[in-house]
Amino acid sequence: MRKIEHIGIAVKDLDLSCDLYEKLLNTACYKREEVASEGVNTAFFKTGENKIELLSATNADSPIAKFLEKKGEGIHHIAFDVEDIYEEMDRLKKEGFVLLNEEPKTGADNKLICFLHPKGTNGVLVELCQEIKLK
Amino acid sequence: MRKIEHIGIAVKDLDLSCDLYEKLLNTACYKREEVASEGVNTAFFKTGENKIELLSATNADSPIAKFLEKKGEGIHHIAFDVEDIYEEMDRLKKEGFVLLNEEPKTGADNKLICFLHPKGTNGVLVELCQEIKLK
Repeated sequence: MRKIEHIGIAVKDLDLSCDLYEKLLNTACYKREEVASEGVNTAFFKTGENKIELLSATNADSPIAKFLEKKGEGIHHIAFDVEDIYEEMDRLKKEGFVLLNEEPKTGADNKLICFLHPKGTNGVLVELCQEIKLK
Repeated sequence: MRKIEHIGIAVKDLDLSCDLYEKLLNTACYKREEVASEGVNTAFFKTGENKIELLSATNADSPIAKFLEKKGEGIHHIAFDVEDIYEEMDRLKKEGFVLLNEEPKTGADNKLICFLHPKGTNGVLVELCQEIKLK
């Protein structure tokens, strides 16, 4: 866990929320990206060394659609930057944390990712992410 | 909004959660502080240039007690570091955001703070905070 990489916020309407967060953070959205495998559209903002990622659902089966239905709009997860995701997954498993995927998945923003079960982290959905290095 | 200063996480048992987050973040809690005016006990961890703040309630009227009752444990707020809190409050009010306090309050960790109404920020409780400079 080197630092917070980004904070993910679930929103209903990405366009409206993009405008809102541009005003709030006083900075422009610098990237939009769809992650089809997760059923999400994302919009990114920079703040200091971290990012804010707005997430909206692209279909009813998306984890974001389910989150919005159950909890409404709000903070969805915290993602931590890790140097070696396999090593960190192994360390956390040994500490008793429950991983939601046993192998890293490919996420937005050129990352390998893994989520921890929020029941083991005081209700917080924690994501590990490691930059995919292009050779 | 210069950067994320900290992320606040509401927990039921500060001691247990402190142990848990030491394992999760692989770093020791570096400070504990009670903010009697807010009815909270806090514990701080460093991660990169940000902090994680665990919050537990010290009485039933505490905003954290109410949050736990309504939503359970989880992420409570994101705090952004600002250079001049009065200027930022003024800017955000003009942009249409609703402030929960019209004058800055004194928070944990030697800060002047102000919260924005989460209804205006996609359900996210946003805190502005400015370091109190000792003369």
